[in-house]
Amino acid sequence: MKQSFLFTKTRRDAPKDEVSQNAKLLIRAGFIHKEMAGVYSYLPLGFRVLNKIIGIIREEINAIGGQELFLSALQDKAVWEKTGRWDERAVDSWFKTELKGGAETGLAFTHEEPLTALMRDHISSYKDLPKYPYQFQVKFRNELRARSGIIRGREFLMKDLYSFSKNEAEHMPFYEQVKKAYHAIFKRIGIGEKTVLTFASGGSFSKYSHEFQTICAAGEDAIHLCEKCRIAVNDEIITEQTACPQCGNAQFAREKAVEVGNIFTLGTRFSDALGLQYRDETGKEMSVFMGSYGIGPGRTMGVAVELFSDEKGIVWPESIAPFSVHLVSLAGAGKSKAGKDADALYEKLQKAGIETLYDDRDARAGEKFADADLIGIPFRAVISEKTPAGKVEIKKRTSDTVRIVSVNEFLKTFHLP
Amino acid sequence: MKQSFLFTKTRRDAPKDEVSQNAKLLIRAGFIHKEMAGVYSYLPLGFRVLNKIIGIIREEINAIGGQELFLSALQDKAVWEKTGRWDERAVDSWFKTELKGGAETGLAFTHEEPLTALMRDHISSYKDLPKYPYQFQVKFRNELRARSGIIRGREFLMKDLYSFSKNEAEHMPFYEQVKKAYHAIFKRIGIGEKTVLTFASGGSFSKYSHEFQTICAAGEDAIHLCEKCRIAVNDEIITEQTACPQCGNAQFAREKAVEVGNIFTLGTRFSDALGLQYRDETGKEMSVFMGSYGIGPGRTMGVAVELFSDEKGIVWPESIAPFSVHLVSLAGAGKSKAGKDADALYEKLQKAGIETLYDDRDARAGEKFADADLIGIPFRAVISEKTPAGKVEIKKRTSDTVRIVSVNEFLKTFHLP
Repeated sequence: MKQSFLFTKTRRDAPKDEVSQNAKLLIRAGFIHKEMAGVYSYLPLGFRVLNKIIGIIREEINAIGGQELFLSALQDKAVWEKTGRWDERAVDSWFKTELKGGAETGLAFTHEEPLTALMRDHISSYKDLPKYPYQFQVKFRNELRARSGIIRGREFLMKDLYSFSKNEAEHMPFYEQVKKAYHAIFKRIGIGEKTVLTFASGGSFSKYSHEFQTICAAGEDAIHLCEKCRIAVNDEIITEQTACPQCGNAQFAREKAVEVGNIFTLGTRFSDALGLQYRDETGKEMSVFMGSYGIGPGRTMGVAVELFSDEKGIVWPESIAPFSVHLVSLAGAGKSKAGKDADALYEKLQKAGIETLYDDRDARAGEKFADADLIGIPFRAVISEKTPAGKVEIKKRTSDTVRIVSVNEFLKTFHLP
Repeated sequence: MKQSFLFTKTRRDAPKDEVSQNAKLLIRAGFIHKEMAGVYSYLPLGFRVLNKIIGIIREEINAIGGQELFLSALQDKAVWEKTGRWDERAVDSWFKTELKGGAETGLAFTHEEPLTALMRDHISSYKDLPKYPYQFQVKFRNELRARSGIIRGREFLMKDLYSFSKNEAEHMPFYEQVKKAYHAIFKRIGIGEKTVLTFASGGSFSKYSHEFQTICAAGEDAIHLCEKCRIAVNDEIITEQTACPQCGNAQFAREKAVEVGNIFTLGTRFSDALGLQYRDETGKEMSVFMGSYGIGPGRTMGVAVELFSDEKGIVWPESIAPFSVHLVSLAGAGKSKAGKDADALYEKLQKAGIETLYDDRDARAGEKFADADLIGIPFRAVISEKTPAGKVEIKKRTSDTVRIVSVNEFLKTFHLP
């Protein structure tokens, strides 16, 4: 994409009321726009990053048998009353509103209830199980405070996967598969090293649930890390958990962290309340055994910014960067030799399918370099009047070293002939 | 996808309170689920169709210079007060709700206001124009009645494109380009022949706006078709429009229709109210000249079902069908010769990238054929114990003729060697 085409501009200052580092940088670099506290819009660069993250999650969830759907935001009160979660004493983060005619409705903060209800149309026999529907859908949560940028919003995208199994014996292997898939997802996104499986309180059907917590100074959660086996225990259960549930070690290190994912054994809580049953091999009616599994793609993006930035701006991991290459032409306006060389390299990169942001603007070199650092694309490639013919000046965002290499050598970086 | 994997099942009857033909068929075939009147969830088959439509729209809008973003649903009251559209006397379809702390917020029924406001951060000079941001985002409209299935929902997906231009002279050619793109979109979706450009009332900045109306018995709109030049005039302006605005013909035929798209010259209404200005070549501050352009992908899907169905079920146009081939194995359970042949053909189709729903279920032939007709995939391919080796029994959904052809000949249908 040519930068002259992109409508967003970078800016020196973030909005005055913005306190979080992730939102400050993302706003300044033109990735997001703040609508109100806790509500952000995704501009073209931010939308590209979000879609990279979604793409990685989708691949890994499809690989373990997920099938994608798209549930509604508006919710039928009657369905939620059956589990007791319509009541604001049970759930205090509802946004509720009214249909014309007066009936109350609410905006989904999660989707266990409507999905369990709809599965009654599709599950009746043990032959129909297991099934693993999931979606990427906006959730609404009426948070009292929203000061963590896109890490904790009042409106945010969530990948929510649900498992419907015959019983715990069928459920548990899938639960373990999701654990592995989540590790793979966070590794691919680039935050794997900082993300630890964290034991959290379970429900009536399991001793523990599990969170994926990314160790990060901006985190609102506290976790207790067992440095021996790299798992953690969350703050809620640490008092009753004197030793690491995995290795027995009693030494924990307290860390701030952000919960980027969680997996939970729901058991038959929702299927009992909503009447989701199946006939087993002997003809007996049984409640479906459920689990739920969430990841916040926007939150993950925010955490990546918190982890990977420096005083100049964002430093995107390659897998989720909005573009792979930031090609900067210092040729100025007009049809100079360097301008033509930069155009030609852009064409070459486009043809090869290397996602490139091409800074073709008529602006000063200093402004272009500052923008490139702020936006944080992994490779910067510069062509100026001084660049020798057939060469390009490349620099990684993570390094200060500029290397002059041949265009062909540069293309080999991306495994191109 | 194997049908045994797909979690949805077909059903004989639609919900009793469902009156629209599109929702009845889509629910019975397992494409959508009714949450409440005017609120539908998209199940895996329906989500596939929706994404096909989105893909076509995205390609055509990108081709005319659109750049995709994703705005928030929750809206800042202050922004809407500036245009007078927060007031429910001006807009009676708001869903409003409250933030913790008491501030009012609403759910976007469109996005002119927030987008105009955010563009102030990115447009300051004539050099920044024109720009064409767009999105696919859920809109919320508190309709009093919602009886048209996914054709008119209280919550629905919309593709909304906005143009920001220097002036009317720059705006008009783009407006004409969108017209062409819309014709191309509806043609590719398969509803082009029934979709006519319809003159509608304009605003302060143009005599007309334009709707794209699909002639369809289920339509809630009335249009007046000039059969000479295949354009129409909508019901609002027909009394003042005695002759066809395009060819002068005074003969109109009244038709029921569904508005699947619209294009509108907004002029400076929103930029004036919200202070979106640019400096022109002489340094003078000017208001940005705007347009807005909508298409409802879900509505378009509903219209396609209304147009293309018969007593047996849906008859999807090839471009938006959830799958290209419905491969039906009549081999029964176990590893019969026919079962192995069907498995092998499925593998071949998968490898070739032909999207195939493979009915591998242990069910009666009659049930499988009825499901195939209801779901409406363009090609049905059957392999039974009676099918000669290396052959397959194919039938188009639009025809009653079954042909026995070699597998290789069948693959040629999809331009495969």
